[in-house]
Amino acid sequence: MSAAPVQRLAIIGCGLIGSSLARAARAKGAADVIVISDASESVRDRVVELGMADEVIADPADAVRGADLVILAVPPAAIGPAALALAAGLAPGTILSDVGSVKGAVAEAMAAAAPAGVHVIPGHPIAGTEQSGPDAGFATLFENRWTILCPRPSDDPAYPAAVEKLSAFWQALGAQVELMDERHHDLVLAVTSHLPHLIAYNIVGTADDLEGVTQGEVMKYSAGGFRDFTRIAASDPVMWRDVFLLNKDAVLEILGRFTEDLHALSRAIRWGEGEKLEALFTRTRAIRRGIVAAGQESAEPNFGRDKK
Amino acid sequence: MSAAPVQRLAIIGCGLIGSSLARAARAKGAADVIVISDASESVRDRVVELGMADEVIADPADAVRGADLVILAVPPAAIGPAALALAAGLAPGTILSDVGSVKGAVAEAMAAAAPAGVHVIPGHPIAGTEQSGPDAGFATLFENRWTILCPRPSDDPAYPAAVEKLSAFWQALGAQVELMDERHHDLVLAVTSHLPHLIAYNIVGTADDLEGVTQGEVMKYSAGGFRDFTRIAASDPVMWRDVFLLNKDAVLEILGRFTEDLHALSRAIRWGEGEKLEALFTRTRAIRRGIVAAGQESAEPNFGRDKK
Repeated sequence: MSAAPVQRLAIIGCGLIGSSLARAARAKGAADVIVISDASESVRDRVVELGMADEVIADPADAVRGADLVILAVPPAAIGPAALALAAGLAPGTILSDVGSVKGAVAEAMAAAAPAGVHVIPGHPIAGTEQSGPDAGFATLFENRWTILCPRPSDDPAYPAAVEKLSAFWQALGAQVELMDERHHDLVLAVTSHLPHLIAYNIVGTADDLEGVTQGEVMKYSAGGFRDFTRIAASDPVMWRDVFLLNKDAVLEILGRFTEDLHALSRAIRWGEGEKLEALFTRTRAIRRGIVAAGQESAEPNFGRDKK
Repeated sequence: MSAAPVQRLAIIGCGLIGSSLARAARAKGAADVIVISDASESVRDRVVELGMADEVIADPADAVRGADLVILAVPPAAIGPAALALAAGLAPGTILSDVGSVKGAVAEAMAAAAPAGVHVIPGHPIAGTEQSGPDAGFATLFENRWTILCPRPSDDPAYPAAVEKLSAFWQALGAQVELMDERHHDLVLAVTSHLPHLIAYNIVGTADDLEGVTQGEVMKYSAGGFRDFTRIAASDPVMWRDVFLLNKDAVLEILGRFTEDLHALSRAIRWGEGEKLEALFTRTRAIRRGIVAAGQESAEPNFGRDKK
């Protein structure tokens, strides 16, 4: 009997996350056999060249046949259609999971597509870079990162063991696993990830449209803060389009609060209310110190990256 | 005759930037003698302990006596008062500069305080970290960073040579120097630095006020984008209060455009206009690639900092 948590892993979609999953699973011995499927022929060819998988199979239903774990690593809106396309190959007892940044709508779509007896366990690793494609992945992407799993209500007595197995798989890749309700996931991520991306996309767009300042100047003097936003705003356009459309309610709710607060801040600047500004900035600084103290980030200054 | 561009350098204010100036000037041999003054006794004591200066002098007018270059490294709103406090010690021919993130109002205040014959040349190094205080500085902070100088209209035939000398000083610290009109500086920085900070402060404040999501959750899952904002929102509260109050017009103008764009984006999400979202996100990604290509940032992914 194998010591790997997974015997046959099928990864559907081989971009940044899919290719990182394949590399990590191999590097950590988390799966005995790794199968990759991708709708793009050029991606499949590249996967073969890179030698990331034991088998590369074009048809998703064929790719998942015999797999004990199937992970959909496609953009959020493509998860439902991908699940439908491979459903015919799924056997009872197989775990069907994903890596989408939105859970509610995506989880519903996966569950609707899955045949009876398949264990649908939506998942989301909080890890990524602004790069895309099969060359962008790396084996350590998930190390010391959180992966959130959102188990669904199930009468199947084998379901809890399936959740255990999927947790063990992610832990084998170096991730810390947390279980969470789907709706709560979507609210938490709206704050910690979706709104930050929306704001970053927006500010980079605003800067690009100015008449009085050239794009060259914006780039040249971007070290003052703007540069960090450009990195976030370089994230995959299709994936992020899907995130905002599929997590609309939570995103608009959080965005509404952000906008209210921004109007208050704008008013404080207009009326020269320095104490209000200083009080907010002092509070936000304390929050950062909490994050550094919690070990979620080093205290290393970022602006001074080339320090020593 | 000394090879150093500056013979006697007086730094007024010894926080992150002032202490980096002292360390860099010594490390690069950019000044023969380094004098530091700070209004805080505990900061002066710490400067002595750290051995950063040749002389530590409490009274600013005494500190600048005999200096050929005086740099005010205090928060923007303190620059005018600091210039008044040291004016009695300034001799004709001395260069009086600063490091403030705002130029227009600050430059006026310096010019109003300076006796006749003193060369007022406002300056701004685009460099920093979210740390503060004399321990936070380091000698390489300005290396490969831009320092913007804003020469003022002057009839003094010696003024151009003073600008040359100040440029040579910054270049000796490893900085690239650019000359710019004060008002244009304030507009460019409103885009590349002031608005990004305002947005970051705001989003961190919004997240802190939510009921449905705990602060612990926000910290735990901050790797999805939020974390970068917390770093920016940990910048010095007093300095940033001053920046927004002193560069009010440009900040409100840019903020108005940002808010308009954000409303349009919000509307596109509400109405499910996926093409609009994808088009913006594709455009902002191209801007990032321009910044990377211009060498203002490495292509190294940031989320995956622990990569290999």
